[in-house]
Amino acid sequence: MMKISARNTLAGTVSKVTKGAVNSEVDLTLNGGDKVAAIITNESVAHLGLKEGVRAYAILKASWVILGKGTDAKKISARNVLPGTVSEVHEGAVNNEVVLKLKGGNELTAIITRESSHSMGFKEGDEAFAVFKASSVIVGVD
Amino acid sequence: MMKISARNTLAGTVSKVTKGAVNSEVDLTLNGGDKVAAIITNESVAHLGLKEGVRAYAILKASWVILGKGTDAKKISARNVLPGTVSEVHEGAVNNEVVLKLKGGNELTAIITRESSHSMGFKEGDEAFAVFKASSVIVGVD
Amino acid sequence: MMKISARNTLAGTVSKVTKGAVNSEVDLTLNGGDKVAAIITNESVAHLGLKEGVRAYAILKASWVILGKGTDAKKISARNVLPGTVSEVHEGAVNNEVVLKLKGGNELTAIITRESSHSMGFKEGDEAFAVFKASSVIVGVD
Repeated sequence: MMKISARNTLAGTVSKVTKGAVNSEVDLTLNGGDKVAAIITNESVAHLGLKEGVRAYAILKASWVILGKGTDAKKISARNVLPGTVSEVHEGAVNNEVVLKLKGGNELTAIITRESSHSMGFKEGDEAFAVFKASSVIVGVD
Repeated sequence: MMKISARNTLAGTVSKVTKGAVNSEVDLTLNGGDKVAAIITNESVAHLGLKEGVRAYAILKASWVILGKGTDAKKISARNVLPGTVSEVHEGAVNNEVVLKLKGGNELTAIITRESSHSMGFKEGDEAFAVFKASSVIVGVD
Repeated sequence: MMKISARNTLAGTVSKVTKGAVNSEVDLTLNGGDKVAAIITNESVAHLGLKEGVRAYAILKASWVILGKGTDAKKISARNVLPGTVSEVHEGAVNNEVVLKLKGGNELTAIITRESSHSMGFKEGDEAFAVFKASSVIVGVD
């Protein structure tokens, strides 16, 4: 895999591709079982050769991830709502970095404002959810 | 409302839903009258039960908001161009946090680079615009 | 041009507009020759008067840009993969700011986590790629 600055480059396998007129939804099952949905153009699906069973990466910048507590996927429009446990919190002047260990064992890093981090009281061991739109996910292949 | 790390979770009411083949535009009128447009999938519109009159939240990370001065909505492709007044500026090493008080009274926080913040000279009391794409807005319900 | 906080406001000319049912792809050739693809609504194309030959700006927040090394555009779903050379790295507590001088001479700034910046070892003079989705680009006109 090429090297890329996105903190979250999660390895998995394509489990389904649903084609629309212009865009497709690509469902990935990450190593460990976590699931991620990505919306990319049909053109990208073709040039990456994505189809069921192909190994691929879900790529997601830390700044695109929202963290929730007690998040109910039925109450939010974002397609990706992944449960996990906070494993690290790094403090900055304006932003904090929070690392979430997902159920399937993948680590997902979020950059959130320091104020949000404090008001939600994130600390190691907390149960939390990573929330992100399918349209923000980039897909890569080896 | 579930707790979520996005700095901007703005309460309002759905004023219109315009369905496309795959996505819908959901127009929200925030408490106070500010208006926000969101593009989400038809599937999300259905599972959230969004329609005119339903109470909902526009959710938007601070890092997804651009700030403008003298911004003319007719000259930029972003659907959301909301006027307001700068109420706070917090300095970081790389990023600054700027809080905008929108016309309708809602507060919207933007994380912008320190250099942009300085070159634009943002300070309390300045008139400014929050600019963001409809596709970056997430919609939540109680 | 109105003033806007997005670090990356790159001047160019529309080279092509490809209309879909709801969205259009707008291809811009920046001054110097770098190319950027943007996906915006047909409505925005109309109200900005975008067509071949029109002067326009590609607007992109620094936090929406991923940086790669040895990036192969055929292996990633993001439409924009622009080669350049690292010209500056500014360190923060959580995030670093990396400036890329593109082949055509334009400067593009990315905010990436400090940890990604360190693990990839970005320093002045390195060859690198700016990676971003067409759907994250905002288009502006004078």
